[in-house]
Amino acid sequence: MSTFREDGAAALDWVAHYLETVTDHPVLARVDPGAIRAALPASPPDEAEPFAAVLRDLDEILMPGITHWQSPRYFAYFSASAAEPGILAELLIAGLNQVGILWRASPALQELEEVTLDWLRQLLGLPDPLHGHIEDGASSGLITALAAARAAAPDRRVVVCSEHTHSSTMKAARLLELEVRAAPVDAAFALRPDELDLTRACAVVATVGTTSSTAVDPVAAIADRAAAEGVWLHVDAAYAGAAAVCPELRHHFAGWERADSIGVNPHKWLFTPMDCSVFFCRRPDDVRRAFSLVPEYLRGNEDVISLSEYASPLGRRFRALKLWATLRCFGRDGLQAIIREHVRLAALFEDWVVAEPGWELCATRHFSLVCFRKVGSDEENEAIMRRVNDSGEIFLSHTKLGGRFVLRLAIGNVRTNEADVALAWDVLRREADG
Amino acid sequence: MSTFREDGAAALDWVAHYLETVTDHPVLARVDPGAIRAALPASPPDEAEPFAAVLRDLDEILMPGITHWQSPRYFAYFSASAAEPGILAELLIAGLNQVGILWRASPALQELEEVTLDWLRQLLGLPDPLHGHIEDGASSGLITALAAARAAAPDRRVVVCSEHTHSSTMKAARLLELEVRAAPVDAAFALRPDELDLTRACAVVATVGTTSSTAVDPVAAIADRAAAEGVWLHVDAAYAGAAAVCPELRHHFAGWERADSIGVNPHKWLFTPMDCSVFFCRRPDDVRRAFSLVPEYLRGNEDVISLSEYASPLGRRFRALKLWATLRCFGRDGLQAIIREHVRLAALFEDWVVAEPGWELCATRHFSLVCFRKVGSDEENEAIMRRVNDSGEIFLSHTKLGGRFVLRLAIGNVRTNEADVALAWDVLRREADG
Repeated sequence: MSTFREDGAAALDWVAHYLETVTDHPVLARVDPGAIRAALPASPPDEAEPFAAVLRDLDEILMPGITHWQSPRYFAYFSASAAEPGILAELLIAGLNQVGILWRASPALQELEEVTLDWLRQLLGLPDPLHGHIEDGASSGLITALAAARAAAPDRRVVVCSEHTHSSTMKAARLLELEVRAAPVDAAFALRPDELDLTRACAVVATVGTTSSTAVDPVAAIADRAAAEGVWLHVDAAYAGAAAVCPELRHHFAGWERADSIGVNPHKWLFTPMDCSVFFCRRPDDVRRAFSLVPEYLRGNEDVISLSEYASPLGRRFRALKLWATLRCFGRDGLQAIIREHVRLAALFEDWVVAEPGWELCATRHFSLVCFRKVGSDEENEAIMRRVNDSGEIFLSHTKLGGRFVLRLAIGNVRTNEADVALAWDVLRREADG
Repeated sequence: MSTFREDGAAALDWVAHYLETVTDHPVLARVDPGAIRAALPASPPDEAEPFAAVLRDLDEILMPGITHWQSPRYFAYFSASAAEPGILAELLIAGLNQVGILWRASPALQELEEVTLDWLRQLLGLPDPLHGHIEDGASSGLITALAAARAAAPDRRVVVCSEHTHSSTMKAARLLELEVRAAPVDAAFALRPDELDLTRACAVVATVGTTSSTAVDPVAAIADRAAAEGVWLHVDAAYAGAAAVCPELRHHFAGWERADSIGVNPHKWLFTPMDCSVFFCRRPDDVRRAFSLVPEYLRGNEDVISLSEYASPLGRRFRALKLWATLRCFGRDGLQAIIREHVRLAALFEDWVVAEPGWELCATRHFSLVCFRKVGSDEENEAIMRRVNDSGEIFLSHTKLGGRFVLRLAIGNVRTNEADVALAWDVLRREADG
């Protein structure tokens, strides 16, 4: 304890310096598999080491194995970047070390989570009341939703989704022993509601902003069908959900207010550190019936439902504190400004691709992801991506759309500005010629 | 960013001051349900607020709703306390914001996790090789183990455990639609191997250190039966596993080296901040077969198995960094010294109870939990507990053993010393007379 303030100052300086110099590093780690492991001591020390040794080895051993999600030039997968308020909140969370196994174990944890998720509900334009709680990721949210759906309709064992649903739907269905029925998509990679077969379905998963191309399934039409046939509708808006903070983008979400459950990941496009995934639900009693189990040693005298009754984990971190800090320190205006800028930068990049001979767009852009390719073979595009990523200047990833290899530029880092996107386009054209 | 260093210094000072003054607060929060919620603004701000406002409201609004898991006078449930190295590591984790969706997304995250869990394997005296990865909690580890067991023996749908197994076994079984068969326990609340019926069982869960009383199931005998009948053996050592750092306590774990999987929570008795639960496994290929699903957009060129293929979540936090920091900054000697002291303090408290007329022990003590009661009615003991917890001086919890209401004094906070335990005994005797 005597060294906590001193060690803490060093750790804080380390993080500040890291964020100030993050673009000095190659964005994608360049190490070979096993290199970091080989550089680390094979056995734990017998005697205590100073915290300074951890910082030293972070620099000397681990840093080459870091892929810089915090870099403004990170354009791969979907961005997940942590802004400063959430980073500092993680220090507070660890210092307080709340363990929310039940309400009395941390009333502040549970009630701040309830209030913060109601704030987020308001920011996203969702109706009141709406149950919300925080999970580690959208994969867990899918399990929660599908387990509740299965419990509510035990003789129906099918989950319906589009071919472009996230792999977590398949993983959750496998865990829950449900059959997956993938509906075909239209030219924009969105689920075709006329092809929707809900026979024996307990749940249908619609996605607003698919992982491959940010396609938007027709949620309103799916909600009509789900309601008519008594099927649980889960809307996966893990990435795109944050866009609903901007009223002008809410038309993409039409109908999600009728979903039985919704997943939105503040650790993606709301600049909250990993991990923070929100599960909203209009039928919390069904979720609780599927999960609640309170043993004797956790019975209190209070007549309060604990958030741990709504999912598999018993312990909860005080994640609400970092989301609360983030929402406050940006404010509605601040969040809107960044999301709008990201969408503007994606539109700008799209314009550049369209204007450049020999390049083409590969999917409709709805948010801040651009899917594009160089006119040519899959191999050629794959080689471009490899050279671009090897340059270390930017990092982007790919998908397959209509059987073709497609590059993805995903904008969403809280620190990305127009110069970073322009650099990406320069590097891409340079490596395409290289 | 301009204010990060300044805000960070304030946050660091807040945490340092909190840890220095943690015993000034009532250990168990005294607020009524809804009071924290009512004190918080009902809507998010439009404009950005300074980080200082978060710290202010933490003090003025949230603090009364905090139950102080960090207090050395916290003796409820099982202790989960965060020591300084892990607290500062959380700041680094958030600053780096690694998202381990696959190896290349953070080679350092994956390989440090592999090395750190091998260090822990060595510290616990477990055999090499042993797959290990970090999950959020033991509940998730149960799901991982039982899902792998179910996939390996699809026509067997029973999980066998003792009546005293943790509720997460029942929760996992419900999620996986497995039937739970609870075996009877002996006078020490340990599973009776002669009563073990593994018919149609895909898995058996043995516990070393049950939640109610830290009973120790006879793992070696259970391992014999499980091996003979081809049944997956999971050992739940969420709390007690840390004790295996001390060779003189390893006899309690005899046979766990033959388990198919083991759960140990460093966020309990290894002083690592929430959350950090370790899943060890001798049959990782079976786990991977139950969970792995790699979509196109996550395919890399490297021939590396990502840790995300071994469980439900896709994204991983850089939790390994806090466990690594903790193991290094305590060292083997430091961890042994604290665990031994906690066991010594529990034995001392036990002696005091035995020596005091009108009080009795209610279970064999194996580690650092003492189960005891005042001779008298359940209502009397419940009233004593309520008065003790209302005093704010200490916090303890209860269970039921043999149908009787039993008090539990769980020692395990990294800051607890003999004076804290002596205070607990003073408060208990005072309130029993009150």
